[in-house]
Amino acid sequence: MSEHPPAQSVAALGEQGLLSRLSGILSRHTGGLPLGTGDDCAITPAATPGNRLVWTLDTMVEGTHFRFWPGTHAGDLGRKLAATNLSDLASKGAAPRFALVSLGLPGDADVALVEAFYAGLDEELTAAGAILLGGDTVRAPQWCLSLTVVGELGEGLPIAARHAARPGDGVFVTGTLGDSAAGLAVLEGGGSGHEFLVDRHLRPTARLAEGRALVASIDRLAMMDLSDGLACDGARLATASGVRVVLDGRLVPLSPALTEWAAAVGRDPRELALHGGEDYELLLCAPLSEPQVRALLAERGIATLITRIGTIEAGEPGLFLRSDGGDDRKLEAKGFEHFT
Amino acid sequence: MSEHPPAQSVAALGEQGLLSRLSGILSRHTGGLPLGTGDDCAITPAATPGNRLVWTLDTMVEGTHFRFWPGTHAGDLGRKLAATNLSDLASKGAAPRFALVSLGLPGDADVALVEAFYAGLDEELTAAGAILLGGDTVRAPQWCLSLTVVGELGEGLPIAARHAARPGDGVFVTGTLGDSAAGLAVLEGGGSGHEFLVDRHLRPTARLAEGRALVASIDRLAMMDLSDGLACDGARLATASGVRVVLDGRLVPLSPALTEWAAAVGRDPRELALHGGEDYELLLCAPLSEPQVRALLAERGIATLITRIGTIEAGEPGLFLRSDGGDDRKLEAKGFEHFT
Repeated sequence: MSEHPPAQSVAALGEQGLLSRLSGILSRHTGGLPLGTGDDCAITPAATPGNRLVWTLDTMVEGTHFRFWPGTHAGDLGRKLAATNLSDLASKGAAPRFALVSLGLPGDADVALVEAFYAGLDEELTAAGAILLGGDTVRAPQWCLSLTVVGELGEGLPIAARHAARPGDGVFVTGTLGDSAAGLAVLEGGGSGHEFLVDRHLRPTARLAEGRALVASIDRLAMMDLSDGLACDGARLATASGVRVVLDGRLVPLSPALTEWAAAVGRDPRELALHGGEDYELLLCAPLSEPQVRALLAERGIATLITRIGTIEAGEPGLFLRSDGGDDRKLEAKGFEHFT
Repeated sequence: MSEHPPAQSVAALGEQGLLSRLSGILSRHTGGLPLGTGDDCAITPAATPGNRLVWTLDTMVEGTHFRFWPGTHAGDLGRKLAATNLSDLASKGAAPRFALVSLGLPGDADVALVEAFYAGLDEELTAAGAILLGGDTVRAPQWCLSLTVVGELGEGLPIAARHAARPGDGVFVTGTLGDSAAGLAVLEGGGSGHEFLVDRHLRPTARLAEGRALVASIDRLAMMDLSDGLACDGARLATASGVRVVLDGRLVPLSPALTEWAAAVGRDPRELALHGGEDYELLLCAPLSEPQVRALLAERGIATLITRIGTIEAGEPGLFLRSDGGDDRKLEAKGFEHFT
């Protein structure tokens, strides 16, 4: 990966050497804690009384979840690991507080790459208001990265569970869908250009402000983040709530970049928007109209696109695509299956 | 691993199938939470006001940290992953509350083994008062297991940091040392018998009650758990506190099982007690005598052996072994180095 050999490997630097490099990154934020990095545990102040704690964990394994593409910046890998977790907290409207990372590394991993990864991870977490407390660093046959992030959910705020959708709710998504899958296709094809799409794949953004604003201003809502594709994740929400999620495919928001790229390569952009993963946009179900939801965000100074793409109906649980003629077609998930 | 082929692989069962099996184990304890398993996040009640939060994470990679020995029970692997984390919390006197697990599995992993692992993990955490909230399950080339456990430390209790040792303190350890390393040697040699030693390696016990009792009854103390061997971990404490940890090697507590086995195979049991890892006993420094520390535990109904093995002195930081003649020999750590 390094363009500047000779690189120093973590095996050559040794565990203590690596830890002291990484603790330099950590200690900028952990210094004020009751017990910071370098002990058996980190100890943080008490949580805000009454605030519930919100827990999430995501793992990324080299070869399964990511590859070191030519030109990949390891900092982006750290930022993405943070963003995938923060996106989960965003979907419950939680405020990120603390994080722990597990870093499995091959002995020949380049120390500069590991430091860049760690700095990117720390940067993204810090920007979201969370403190990286440390974790564990071990030898593994490939990069194996796992992040735990814990946030707080203010007293009295609703729990935006997947099971909270009800018939009559509008179905909304933030941003545009399919961009990340297109960006991955660009990378896999060895293509250049299409920076917007590649950027959406390598540097996703957790919709933290949007999630918090929605939870703070809607009494009952169901929300989740879209990590495995709208069809797959929407079906999960349908099952959890015991409802039909009925989408109007024409309303699914597409970026101009996706539309242009898809036309050039002969792909169907709506197929990517329905089945492509890693968008990290929010899927929201609430008893509100599109203008109402847009107004809620605008009132809080949030300009992020939010689009109504369907309706929750009673009936056999599942995700359905309504055709122009009014017929519903059940969408089978083609999302990410980790074990095949 | 399975003695009852044909085994079902996680690839054949599929991710959703595996998750629904595992969620059956989780849901026995997560049902009463504001948001249990199966959503983007788990949400738990507010922490006790004033209680600080205590964070730890440990990772175990197949081939680096463990092997599937003939006769290994996957439940023991889960229990050990829990115990290594709980041992960290024990060293700060924290009460375990919640845990998240990252489960990287090869596609051909036996579902029965995964379930046994998960059940063992859940069982050990439950026994310690912690609730396993879920986590992430992904495909990886080998078993790659990471556990985060968060506990609470009561308001007003001291922080038993590694850096809190002071000249004049007594140095104490719980239990006996070297048993786990001997147990590993038995396993590696393909030997049978020596159940006590093997058990100490495969099924370590976190000293939770001991840690909590010590933190609750001593105003200032330094404490850590012994995971990489007394020499290695003691040197870390010495460095963190800026003190000399001076040990009397004759006082290091040895089990009869270790002494017997070592004599039979011609090993030095004290060498194993000083340099063997994974004992998960507590190393304590406090301004107390051995009878005082024993009385503190006895008053709380704790019968665990605790032994004074040395003294904290001022001077060049390091771990020293005092000879009969009064000369000090600096011990170089031979503990576990993860990257070589």
